[in-house]
Amino acid sequence: MNISILAVGTELLMGKTVNTNATYLSEQINTLGHNVLYHLTVGDNPTRLKDTLEYLLKHSDMVITTGGLGPTQDDLTKEVICESLGLELQKHELAYKMMLERFKQFNVTMTDNNIKQAYLPTECIPMMNQKGTAPGFVAEADGKYVAVLPGPPYEMKHMFENSLRPILEEMSDSVIMSEYIHLFGIGESSAESVIEDLISDQTDPTIAMYASVGQVSIRVTSKSDDFDTCMENIHNTTAEIVSRLEPYVIGFGETNLINETIQLLQDNFMTVALAESCTGGMISSELINYPGASNFFDLGIVSYSNEAKMSLLRVSPETLGTYGAVSEETCSEMLKGLRRLSMSDVLVSVTGIAGPSGGTPDKPVGLVYIGVMLGDAIRVKKFNFSGDRLTIRKRSMLSAINMIREALKP
Amino acid sequence: MNISILAVGTELLMGKTVNTNATYLSEQINTLGHNVLYHLTVGDNPTRLKDTLEYLLKHSDMVITTGGLGPTQDDLTKEVICESLGLELQKHELAYKMMLERFKQFNVTMTDNNIKQAYLPTECIPMMNQKGTAPGFVAEADGKYVAVLPGPPYEMKHMFENSLRPILEEMSDSVIMSEYIHLFGIGESSAESVIEDLISDQTDPTIAMYASVGQVSIRVTSKSDDFDTCMENIHNTTAEIVSRLEPYVIGFGETNLINETIQLLQDNFMTVALAESCTGGMISSELINYPGASNFFDLGIVSYSNEAKMSLLRVSPETLGTYGAVSEETCSEMLKGLRRLSMSDVLVSVTGIAGPSGGTPDKPVGLVYIGVMLGDAIRVKKFNFSGDRLTIRKRSMLSAINMIREALKP
Repeated sequence: MNISILAVGTELLMGKTVNTNATYLSEQINTLGHNVLYHLTVGDNPTRLKDTLEYLLKHSDMVITTGGLGPTQDDLTKEVICESLGLELQKHELAYKMMLERFKQFNVTMTDNNIKQAYLPTECIPMMNQKGTAPGFVAEADGKYVAVLPGPPYEMKHMFENSLRPILEEMSDSVIMSEYIHLFGIGESSAESVIEDLISDQTDPTIAMYASVGQVSIRVTSKSDDFDTCMENIHNTTAEIVSRLEPYVIGFGETNLINETIQLLQDNFMTVALAESCTGGMISSELINYPGASNFFDLGIVSYSNEAKMSLLRVSPETLGTYGAVSEETCSEMLKGLRRLSMSDVLVSVTGIAGPSGGTPDKPVGLVYIGVMLGDAIRVKKFNFSGDRLTIRKRSMLSAINMIREALKP
Repeated sequence: MNISILAVGTELLMGKTVNTNATYLSEQINTLGHNVLYHLTVGDNPTRLKDTLEYLLKHSDMVITTGGLGPTQDDLTKEVICESLGLELQKHELAYKMMLERFKQFNVTMTDNNIKQAYLPTECIPMMNQKGTAPGFVAEADGKYVAVLPGPPYEMKHMFENSLRPILEEMSDSVIMSEYIHLFGIGESSAESVIEDLISDQTDPTIAMYASVGQVSIRVTSKSDDFDTCMENIHNTTAEIVSRLEPYVIGFGETNLINETIQLLQDNFMTVALAESCTGGMISSELINYPGASNFFDLGIVSYSNEAKMSLLRVSPETLGTYGAVSEETCSEMLKGLRRLSMSDVLVSVTGIAGPSGGTPDKPVGLVYIGVMLGDAIRVKKFNFSGDRLTIRKRSMLSAINMIREALKP
């Protein structure tokens, strides 16, 4: 079934509220095997609401509305829908009774305004609101459906789960499944060019790519009448993608680079210690945000100044003078200095130029050295990152975590 | 002018991404004195994209699109728009040159796919992308406008600020001005109750409140035909709000707590050193993200484990045994230990229970001690924060920075 989501509320168009309802509903609807064609947001304006409703109904099998069910004069979703579909509103006695109980339970006096919330189309499936006062409903006209949900996310989700989901389940005849493949160390367009033929040939499974700072994810989705076909389709396509992009694959499903790395540390009963210059505590902070960090995190040194590199990490003034603070030599000495402070299994050091100033032709902004020491083995890698200060620091942070992962992976 | 926002991207309809772009643009557009009529989201489907574009253009003076400018085959916003408006695409030499430079700067090989990003309508105002590779543009056809922005929020915001905002400003005929008042240490609803009468009486200026973790901001906006009236309205309302909320006011305009604090450090030619436990490097990382951090940042110790507290900061085993790692005594000893490592003017220590586990009836999750040492004076404050692990850590970080600000403010 093709479904569109219509959000009603001027506050969304003023930029005061983010439309998370559309995101939530879309994910749920896709998982149930239906398609989402459009999201549309319209203000509390009856003409425009009617017009958009008709536009969406023309192109979809069902329109789900959110918002505009409150007691005030602005709230007119129900009235406009009924006018548009040729349905009549009447006071729904059960809905009214439940509203009275709700007000009693909330210890709030019901105003005359609220009574209009108990009006529902004469022919509909009512959906009770267990978290607020406005009921919703599902109505049908000329083979198309309109489902009406309240706007507050908490009420909306509850009504969807309890009332609308079972209806949508019944209306679905397909199984839809997805797998995610997460990559690190390759850009979105480079990754795509490697699997371009798979993407342009796609009918089922479909392949979609997502990118965030430093990480690219590929989603493989299959839709079928039966579970086994779905599974097989996903398995085959995923295997083909992995065989082509193997060196960059960091994990599958709900994971990400940081979780994978922490899992490896925990599986190996290993701890980590850090000496951070340009990342300035960001790596420590990311790792420590993981509950149970005390199992794998020992200590961190934020040696931003040269003085701190010398006093805390015993980097020699000669090294700093000859090679500079941002150099393979300093990065390596930071590891050796860190070893004096920590007996952790894995030591990490980072030194770089995050900018915007401080760059030279020889050592431009974005030049970062990252070192990892495992046992006696030291590996220092040189990077040239792009972006603003925060992006360079984030890329450094992710690359350092990836170097820990590479050092530990079986 | 009536403006609609058209988001292009199947990932939005799959429920994988929240459309924060629409919210951001709506707020900006309203502030500039234009109206937002619709938000619409459509997938990477040329027929539906063309159809929705035409629907929105029929009802609006301008359509702003976000997304679909990437290098992949899915990305077809530009192509569909040009087909719909009867515009021709051709390779834009300056855009191409800038793209080449961007790739060089990012140290990434440009693939053939990327070249299509340098194609722009023959007649348009190009908008350069300083944070990514895809340029945008503004085109006109039959007295209606289409503005094309990239999808990644970071690129989109930058292009809006630098290129589209000035165009929209020129197209607006009212003067709109805003002032922001930033508060710390008071919740949104408490702040609102203090100025409730001003909010309910508002016609001009209008008063809006925004809350993020730990910080509340109040925006006062006035819209008028002339500059002087605007200024006077804003001045009077701002003065009234400040007189009521004075103890919580940390600054005005574009500032925030961290900027204000760093400014105070710099004005006093002071440096800071940190010993972080539950914040785990987050305070260091926030301070170091400020360009020129070497002027005010000395060093940081992430002493997450008790061992690190003892070995690096010389917290005594007796103190840890008697009072525990999360105690006023440990917090205070961390400062004294930090003094052995740093001669910075301001020392800060943080120790707390970020959860979700580790809490006891005596020391619940959210209990955090923060200490600040200025000269010989030590001040340790006890906090009980709520929220998940990351929120408790963020509140601790902000409160520590606020304690630096309080110690330094004139």
